Amino acid sequence: MLLYKQKNDTIVALSTPIGVSAIAVIRLSGDNCIEIAEQFWQGKKLSTQVGNIALFGKIINNKKEIIDEVVLTLFKAPKSFTKQNSVEISCHGSAYIVQEIIQLCLLNGARLAEAGEFTQRAYLNGQFDLAQAEAIADLIHSDSKSSHQLAIAQMRGGFSQKIKDLRESLIRLAALLELELDFSEEDVEFANREQLYSQIIDLQVIIKNMIDSFVLGNVMKNGFSVAIIGKPNAGKSTLLNALLEEDRAIVSSIAGTTRDTIEEIKNINGIKCRFIDTAGLRETNDTIEKIGIERTLKKTKEAQFIFYIFDTQITSITELKQEEETIKNYQIPYLLVGNKIDLIDKKQLEFFEKIDNFIGISAHNLLKIKELETFLSNYIQSISSNASQIIISNVRHLYCLQNALDALKIVQNAVEIRLATEMIASDLRQAIYHLGSITGDITNEDLLDFIFSKFCIGK
Amino acid sequence: MLLYKQKNDTIVALSTPIGVSAIAVIRLSGDNCIEIAEQFWQGKKLSTQVGNIALFGKIINNKKEIIDEVVLTLFKAPKSFTKQNSVEISCHGSAYIVQEIIQLCLLNGARLAEAGEFTQRAYLNGQFDLAQAEAIADLIHSDSKSSHQLAIAQMRGGFSQKIKDLRESLIRLAALLELELDFSEEDVEFANREQLYSQIIDLQVIIKNMIDSFVLGNVMKNGFSVAIIGKPNAGKSTLLNALLEEDRAIVSSIAGTTRDTIEEIKNINGIKCRFIDTAGLRETNDTIEKIGIERTLKKTKEAQFIFYIFDTQITSITELKQEEETIKNYQIPYLLVGNKIDLIDKKQLEFFEKIDNFIGISAHNLLKIKELETFLSNYIQSISSNASQIIISNVRHLYCLQNALDALKIVQNAVEIRLATEMIASDLRQAIYHLGSITGDITNEDLLDFIFSKFCIGK
Repeated sequence: MLLYKQKNDTIVALSTPIGVSAIAVIRLSGDNCIEIAEQFWQGKKLSTQVGNIALFGKIINNKKEIIDEVVLTLFKAPKSFTKQNSVEISCHGSAYIVQEIIQLCLLNGARLAEAGEFTQRAYLNGQFDLAQAEAIADLIHSDSKSSHQLAIAQMRGGFSQKIKDLRESLIRLAALLELELDFSEEDVEFANREQLYSQIIDLQVIIKNMIDSFVLGNVMKNGFSVAIIGKPNAGKSTLLNALLEEDRAIVSSIAGTTRDTIEEIKNINGIKCRFIDTAGLRETNDTIEKIGIERTLKKTKEAQFIFYIFDTQITSITELKQEEETIKNYQIPYLLVGNKIDLIDKKQLEFFEKIDNFIGISAHNLLKIKELETFLSNYIQSISSNASQIIISNVRHLYCLQNALDALKIVQNAVEIRLATEMIASDLRQAIYHLGSITGDITNEDLLDFIFSKFCIGK
Repeated sequence: MLLYKQKNDTIVALSTPIGVSAIAVIRLSGDNCIEIAEQFWQGKKLSTQVGNIALFGKIINNKKEIIDEVVLTLFKAPKSFTKQNSVEISCHGSAYIVQEIIQLCLLNGARLAEAGEFTQRAYLNGQFDLAQAEAIADLIHSDSKSSHQLAIAQMRGGFSQKIKDLRESLIRLAALLELELDFSEEDVEFANREQLYSQIIDLQVIIKNMIDSFVLGNVMKNGFSVAIIGKPNAGKSTLLNALLEEDRAIVSSIAGTTRDTIEEIKNINGIKCRFIDTAGLRETNDTIEKIGIERTLKKTKEAQFIFYIFDTQITSITELKQEEETIKNYQIPYLLVGNKIDLIDKKQLEFFEKIDNFIGISAHNLLKIKELETFLSNYIQSISSNASQIIISNVRHLYCLQNALDALKIVQNAVEIRLATEMIASDLRQAIYHLGSITGDITNEDLLDFIFSKFCIGK
């Protein structure tokens, strides 16, 4: 049920990045786009062509001056991205030419497309649902294997199907309750309360698993942050360098990090890991250093994992246990990373190895660094152990699912205390509404504008 | 006559700028490009399709994972830009996806294209000649109406045709001379020396006009620079602001200008005019100011025109005449711009107006600024009065034309002093060679590499 009015006027935008290049692509979509293009096109007549055809020709302005020689690709409704007539003009990648061609489109009746407007039309014309449309934006912004896989899976519609199945189960339950309301005089129960109760519980488990998958989905989409903390000279910076050593090429500094904490990104098994090198933690009266340590504490609190690095040469097991208590205060998963193990004897190392959460390394000699990565990779995988096969990564979807879950809890409670059918049905409709708004089966203009405004122009 | 070996292996490159965007286009060209694309393409079978067709489908990697949903456009030899089989993959504009698809192309037998390699193949396969190929690079870099028009005209082949006509005239003359050599025993003159002489003179005039057009061509392509000089407080900066006033939006500062001279660009009648605001000229003992004035002198010497601005309130005709003598030393065309004419009486103004090269303005009150622009625009047009209809803008072409002209002068001289037919024919062949190297009828590998290396990757 679409509340949003479909638009058929012709929109135009540059769909490739701005810059001097071999090719730039200008995209038009709308009922009249072929007639509009015909006004400045010199080549085979467009209106008599079949769709999906690429034609060579010229773009000429009102003064019959040649603007460019281009390839124009014609897509005829409904066989196009937007399911409207569409034209793609592949011209030479000069800012001047692009500007002239867009001007010609505007002069002949097109208007500039807003961000995401092509995808919005595709959605409104039933090319895909809302969750799939959102996946396209994620796909364009994907910058690692994991974020790409998530987006592709969501775009392919697996998630949408799961949500639609859930919603249909609820609609079926609601229908039975509605039936009871129709026959309310006769006091019959079409929906067996025991069965209803167990179904509501089952559906909550499924939704709960989806919600739980957000932690993993978020990591896959936005990366995983690891704070490296420890006393001064424990080897924090050396560890950071050791972690980045093997693959310097794909390392990049994040702009805007505070001067006293350094962030570097490393791709581990397709997941962006953000390592934060922090100031050394110690008691100090130095004002500047105190600020540094405060920032370290702040950064650490925002991290998703802590590497606590210590010098195995000078740290006793008792001291380590004390320090571990402090780390626990962060309430963030952590690993105790014993550095400089090449400088202590085997016996000493064995003592450390009895501790849970311990890995011994030599940051300086690149000893056991791979183990550290494998540990991290396994940890990230383990986040998903409770998650459903469907992984969600979109905050809007999380919010809708939580609302649906809350509504179902109320339904559960209503059934438990045997509330009137009317009340149960009403809460059930709430849950149905929230699930429907994920895929856009229920939606409103504001929501659509919000979603599509985050797209690139030209998409 | 191509000396360069044609290549048929498959090359691949991103043809759109790098950046997050709706669309990125990856281009493949080569005998096997369709077979290569078939390896990672899921959609209609490519090898059985006709050319110029746009197909929707999926890109899948070796693990059968979906990389993207794309539109693939097929061009079949010889109906493609390179005249080879070509494939254009229009994918989502994510750096990750682009990288994955290019990797798949490389894995399946393509190699990365070098800069300009697609255009080089188009040239080698006779799609266009060398001058036309060079025009494509100019077209991509065009950033004003005039530079765009030049590039389009050259790409359309008018210039090439003119050069070919010239070259054919020379070849015809040379053929007659060669005939004489074949019959040298018999001492006949197939080429009437009078006629030969006058034809050589005519051809020199045509080439000379083309060479002269370079001044205009260079202005059209690279812009026209005007130095604004004058005494302190004459109103130089006010004039610059007045010139830019009307169209602030398309004004941009040029990076890297020295701190003491300011350059601003204004598009006047489609030509990029670069106005240089300079330090005030006066006798000074201040070291810093001296440096500023030296820079002003240097910048002024590099300019193509001078606006000498002076305050009409405080400058007598005699003083102005003296100052004009100094300006003449630059040997650059100039205009005397009298400022603050709203503050002097009519009589005084009439005296100034009797001077050639004078325009009176009020920079502060935007009086007669349009006249100044019209003057400049007319001046630029006038550069072309002696030029041929063909305007050249490429330094390589200028160099070839000058060489051809030099060779023709030697021919002329040889005819004058009635040198042996053999000598005349040899010099004529030199001229033919130089003209031929403009369009690529005569060429070598080094030259081609040099020309195409200046192209974008993917073109």
